[in-house]
Amino acid sequence: MNLEEAVSALASGDMKLRDAAKALDEDRAVEARRRALEARHDLDLSPLDGRLRGSEAENNVENMVGALEIPLGVAPELEVHGEHARGIFDVPLATTEGALVASVSRGCSAVRESGGAVARILKDGMTRAPVFLTSGVEEALKVSRWIDGNPDAVNRAVSSTTEHGELLDVEPFPVGRNLFLRLRLDAKDAMGMNMVTIASEAVAELIEGELGIRLVSLSGNMCVDKKPSALNVVRGRGKSVAAEVVVPRDTVERVLKCTPDSIVDLNVRKNLIGSARAASLGFNAHHANIVAALFLATGQDEAHVVEGSTGITTAEAVDGDLYLSVTLPALPIGTVGGGTRLPAQRACLETLGVAGGGEPPGENADRLAEIAAATVLAGELSLMGALAAGHLSRAHEELGR
Amino acid sequence: MNLEEAVSALASGDMKLRDAAKALDEDRAVEARRRALEARHDLDLSPLDGRLRGSEAENNVENMVGALEIPLGVAPELEVHGEHARGIFDVPLATTEGALVASVSRGCSAVRESGGAVARILKDGMTRAPVFLTSGVEEALKVSRWIDGNPDAVNRAVSSTTEHGELLDVEPFPVGRNLFLRLRLDAKDAMGMNMVTIASEAVAELIEGELGIRLVSLSGNMCVDKKPSALNVVRGRGKSVAAEVVVPRDTVERVLKCTPDSIVDLNVRKNLIGSARAASLGFNAHHANIVAALFLATGQDEAHVVEGSTGITTAEAVDGDLYLSVTLPALPIGTVGGGTRLPAQRACLETLGVAGGGEPPGENADRLAEIAAATVLAGELSLMGALAAGHLSRAHEELGR
Amino acid sequence: MNLEEAVSALASGDMKLRDAAKALDEDRAVEARRRALEARHDLDLSPLDGRLRGSEAENNVENMVGALEIPLGVAPELEVHGEHARGIFDVPLATTEGALVASVSRGCSAVRESGGAVARILKDGMTRAPVFLTSGVEEALKVSRWIDGNPDAVNRAVSSTTEHGELLDVEPFPVGRNLFLRLRLDAKDAMGMNMVTIASEAVAELIEGELGIRLVSLSGNMCVDKKPSALNVVRGRGKSVAAEVVVPRDTVERVLKCTPDSIVDLNVRKNLIGSARAASLGFNAHHANIVAALFLATGQDEAHVVEGSTGITTAEAVDGDLYLSVTLPALPIGTVGGGTRLPAQRACLETLGVAGGGEPPGENADRLAEIAAATVLAGELSLMGALAAGHLSRAHEELGR
Amino acid sequence: MNLEEAVSALASGDMKLRDAAKALDEDRAVEARRRALEARHDLDLSPLDGRLRGSEAENNVENMVGALEIPLGVAPELEVHGEHARGIFDVPLATTEGALVASVSRGCSAVRESGGAVARILKDGMTRAPVFLTSGVEEALKVSRWIDGNPDAVNRAVSSTTEHGELLDVEPFPVGRNLFLRLRLDAKDAMGMNMVTIASEAVAELIEGELGIRLVSLSGNMCVDKKPSALNVVRGRGKSVAAEVVVPRDTVERVLKCTPDSIVDLNVRKNLIGSARAASLGFNAHHANIVAALFLATGQDEAHVVEGSTGITTAEAVDGDLYLSVTLPALPIGTVGGGTRLPAQRACLETLGVAGGGEPPGENADRLAEIAAATVLAGELSLMGALAAGHLSRAHEELGR
Repeated sequence: MNLEEAVSALASGDMKLRDAAKALDEDRAVEARRRALEARHDLDLSPLDGRLRGSEAENNVENMVGALEIPLGVAPELEVHGEHARGIFDVPLATTEGALVASVSRGCSAVRESGGAVARILKDGMTRAPVFLTSGVEEALKVSRWIDGNPDAVNRAVSSTTEHGELLDVEPFPVGRNLFLRLRLDAKDAMGMNMVTIASEAVAELIEGELGIRLVSLSGNMCVDKKPSALNVVRGRGKSVAAEVVVPRDTVERVLKCTPDSIVDLNVRKNLIGSARAASLGFNAHHANIVAALFLATGQDEAHVVEGSTGITTAEAVDGDLYLSVTLPALPIGTVGGGTRLPAQRACLETLGVAGGGEPPGENADRLAEIAAATVLAGELSLMGALAAGHLSRAHEELGR
Repeated sequence: MNLEEAVSALASGDMKLRDAAKALDEDRAVEARRRALEARHDLDLSPLDGRLRGSEAENNVENMVGALEIPLGVAPELEVHGEHARGIFDVPLATTEGALVASVSRGCSAVRESGGAVARILKDGMTRAPVFLTSGVEEALKVSRWIDGNPDAVNRAVSSTTEHGELLDVEPFPVGRNLFLRLRLDAKDAMGMNMVTIASEAVAELIEGELGIRLVSLSGNMCVDKKPSALNVVRGRGKSVAAEVVVPRDTVERVLKCTPDSIVDLNVRKNLIGSARAASLGFNAHHANIVAALFLATGQDEAHVVEGSTGITTAEAVDGDLYLSVTLPALPIGTVGGGTRLPAQRACLETLGVAGGGEPPGENADRLAEIAAATVLAGELSLMGALAAGHLSRAHEELGR
Repeated sequence: MNLEEAVSALASGDMKLRDAAKALDEDRAVEARRRALEARHDLDLSPLDGRLRGSEAENNVENMVGALEIPLGVAPELEVHGEHARGIFDVPLATTEGALVASVSRGCSAVRESGGAVARILKDGMTRAPVFLTSGVEEALKVSRWIDGNPDAVNRAVSSTTEHGELLDVEPFPVGRNLFLRLRLDAKDAMGMNMVTIASEAVAELIEGELGIRLVSLSGNMCVDKKPSALNVVRGRGKSVAAEVVVPRDTVERVLKCTPDSIVDLNVRKNLIGSARAASLGFNAHHANIVAALFLATGQDEAHVVEGSTGITTAEAVDGDLYLSVTLPALPIGTVGGGTRLPAQRACLETLGVAGGGEPPGENADRLAEIAAATVLAGELSLMGALAAGHLSRAHEELGR
Repeated sequence: MNLEEAVSALASGDMKLRDAAKALDEDRAVEARRRALEARHDLDLSPLDGRLRGSEAENNVENMVGALEIPLGVAPELEVHGEHARGIFDVPLATTEGALVASVSRGCSAVRESGGAVARILKDGMTRAPVFLTSGVEEALKVSRWIDGNPDAVNRAVSSTTEHGELLDVEPFPVGRNLFLRLRLDAKDAMGMNMVTIASEAVAELIEGELGIRLVSLSGNMCVDKKPSALNVVRGRGKSVAAEVVVPRDTVERVLKCTPDSIVDLNVRKNLIGSARAASLGFNAHHANIVAALFLATGQDEAHVVEGSTGITTAEAVDGDLYLSVTLPALPIGTVGGGTRLPAQRACLETLGVAGGGEPPGENADRLAEIAAATVLAGELSLMGALAAGHLSRAHEELGR
């Protein structure tokens, strides 16, 4: 089979992505897959084969000496029934961990056989929490009450810094003489951390001016940014998002080589009891793997995988079938700003149909969050199936990790 | 100034990396910096300007459609006094977060002015914790005691799977009928997760055969892999590593534009009290940012930034100067296997002088861990200085994040 | 000195409580102190010398075989400047831990020398969180939105069960098919757990009827009752309350035998860094000791010391003096119901002037909470002073613990 | 029925404890039950009806003004198959929470019908963790290595302070310039906190003398005493102990009015998922209630209920029956010292056959720990049954809480 034939077969679905390497050498297989994706999505994906130029990245790095290339694979045909994302998606994943894309792909197949994954955003809002020094508890309470009583002034301070973001609320946490104020913004299609930081600075200046207390640090670690925290688990940060699927028993047995009961049992012993005994903030098999690979591919902040690792996976047997869900309380994600502007990252967002600002604003980030949750679901399904079937390390051995 | 002149000036240190863009356009500045690095380290860094080919990445990804390019910058001249890493390092950092490399670079300057950072490995060992089903507490205890009493058999099982790894210990955690066994291996220069997984499978087979209990899952979530957990904080996973520096008051004032006391004060209110109030597992400013960027650059597993975010930063005023330390209890890191084999990632490891297996085995991974801790220290120093000086969001605004 | 003389001297303050045992044997010293308290507060404290009769306790225990007696001491003359509690209080503490009352008493002296402790309630509300089974994420969201949209129906359900309590809010937490609803009530002078449980049952019946989902458990562990949890730390449960004091350097040196700086230093290394490294939810020296002793004395639920142990102590040097604060995010406390009805417990509440319902309702519980926080503050001050001065174990040795 | 007849009937088992109040008024029912217990165990339980005298409590409290009486009930006939405790126990519980003793009693019945509870101690050792100030990471490592290399010197320091206790290990935790050393002692029948504190002081003096570093605080909060902590969950403190039972389906249905499946389901949704979502350190229904009541009755430190609340309850359907287990990682408990010397508390210990030092030393404390775990198991079984059957708040309403 020559390259052109392979492209056609892949684009039409007659050939699966994973079979390209059987027909072509690996270098040409990569090209064939990329061109097939271009055809399927009517896109130019040349940045995935390009060199990143300094002038393209000058807002993203300093002292640039080149580019670091992460292998990019695709988990094909994930069916999502979100409130925002609806359809079938070829999910780009950047990773160096052999077997990961294959595993997620298997999950996508199982999800699709099951009629797709439901996904929903549960809560939304990007946060920043400056810390102020007060004279003590009384003053800290006074400031908290002033903020409650002066929403217009606070909103004005926020809107002086951003056209897009909207202040959702300000939660005060006094601790001795310290007053932490956790501001939460609807950042629309932006992940929003810069937006909320700049807005917080304006609010901090307002408070310093009006109430005479001193800002100690624009970030007081109750944001909580890039540190695992129960606060984010309980209150959310970025998108709180969930996805679920009911996988027919037959699909579990045929695709995952195990049974619904074995996955339910494994979920209780591993993801719930094991994580409880480890005093963990993540009750899942490997949310972080999928979040990391999707975040890299789509230009998110790579350190935000920390928050993305704190989800809960549940599994139940329902009428003999397998119900599986993932809930991610804190997923900071966006489609504008930061790394989303880089050529390859943007090409990946385009593959998912969510590049740039959405219509209405926020729509693209909402879609991406739902796709992310569904992808995590597919990844959980596949790994838990592999563990239940007992062949985790064998997969790794074969795939050379 | 033409390109060749710039390369010379950069290589000799007459021009700073960050000044290259003043003399050349950004595309050529990137080339000049890379060539200067090549000259300084006598290396071929062409992979940083290359295209990743499918045949180079076939062990690292499936369904490959190309490569995702992450801008790669360098934080120059980090002086490290480790037990293993000794010298001055140009630290490669892959990130899309504008201002990060500039900030770490400023930290490296301050560290160097201070005579360098001390770094030490506190503990080492990669872990995997399979979970077994027993008949109950009595049998779980019996199995635990059998393992204690049969070290030779357990060691034989482990060494049947690996030439390099050495079993350090097996810690049992019974919970009802579940028995979790946390195996810890000295994985030498490998990060070791695959090694310990495969070894765990052999031990699991031994136990199933000898004691008649059933393996439920090769990973029981007490490993703990890629979920934030107090277990890893308390017991360590991968390298537990620390770094510290005493920054003279003058350097704090001149380079960081603040005072030792202001950083000490900020550390207490933000990194300690703020994180405490947020019920966080990370008591630091932004360890995750530096870990993420260095992990990407050096081919580590990008999801392991989760563990890398759980460190503690301390700051003290000592004789008027600033003592700053970082302690990272769980840093999974290696120089062989996984993403370290990819061309650009290997070029970054070479820049640090730690590519491939060390001499003696484990030496390269130890060096990299110490460099990582020192880089995190530089990153903390710079960000905390910026926060104390009150210009965090301004830096971001200017740098376009 | 005979008994009557001792009573007079103690009541007038000419003799300190701790000196009674020098003038009388211990049995008569106890009587003298009790009678002096009766005189000072114009109370009948005979229940502290009585036998608990079965008919007095039939609502509090089953299969009663007698009473367990806990030694009751008094930490005298705690000066409190609360929003609710204002004055000087003789704080009853029931404990078997030798040295505890003596230590808190020392703290009370230091607080009084410092002009008293400021105390404030930061937040209030008792919670219960039933868990429901839904068909999945969509239905869970639908129920959440129904509750938001039908406040009147929910309030009616609550008020059908209680005259006193007022619903503050209902926070939904969906996890897969599970929906947790955390109800929060203003329970006035009651600790409120029964009140909110009964109200939750009514709300659960409403929801089952209206929306057709099934209640799994009236408590879904997101209440969170008697389990340490970050949720309570972050969101509060019962009273969130704080107290603070500025202790003059001279008082620190003379009463506590150390310096402000030594306590500040100890607070950072022990209460902040030590607790951080232990992945603790309590950043304090021994809040639980004082909470436990005061809870026993005043008829609180003894298991609620769990929540009462999760506070943060901060210490700062301010103009050479010592600023010390305690913040208790979750203190379930009341003055009516439960053990507060028992004779000895009621006598202790009367000693503090907070027995029974307050005027307006809630006032007595608020006062007790502020006194509790101030007592915890005194206890922290004294123990931290002892540790800083280096004589913790010596105190225990001498006092025979 | 007169009093004497009731005593006979209760002692012989012809009448149940809970039926005494039907035959007699509540005051005389209490006497009858107590006298029946005296007869059954051949004991003098008059302290349960007495007044605590000052001279009896002078080591346990200061400024004593009397005694606080806690109602004391009995949960009868708990069958325990421990490694140490074997037999049927009448468990004394001191509480003010109506319905608690009745609920635990129901659990004891169900456990007995099931053939008793298995109980085992998993790990043992009381801890104290002083914190030292070093010059930095290098010195901290040097000290750690010195301790490893000088076990004899360290053991001599410990044994100079205690005849009974044996040093088990010393675990170092360096954090910046701070070095925490967590000493663990086998304290035999003592709970051991004083013992390990005094031993730690001797070790601290040794280290200060030999290595020239300064002790900052004899307790560095990594002990971890009376603060909820993952460290204790992971490493244990005091006794780590577990209990389990297999309850036949018929017993579940008849005694608990629900089904094994309903309890298994409730355990997953409430105790595992609910606690996970709340970022809790306790994965159980109400361990703290039973620990608190038993600790009060047997003279334990009442603030140690904090550690006792961090257990995990698991439930499984096994061949149609219900398997239930509790695992308590950190239960500080003893039969000598502290409150165990008080008359009523000692009477309760005698009722369980574990008063004073055991033979061999440690045996009594081990027995008590196993009984405690089995009692917690009974309490979990009953409450979870009540919740599954849907009548929690009704029980409270009826019993007047």
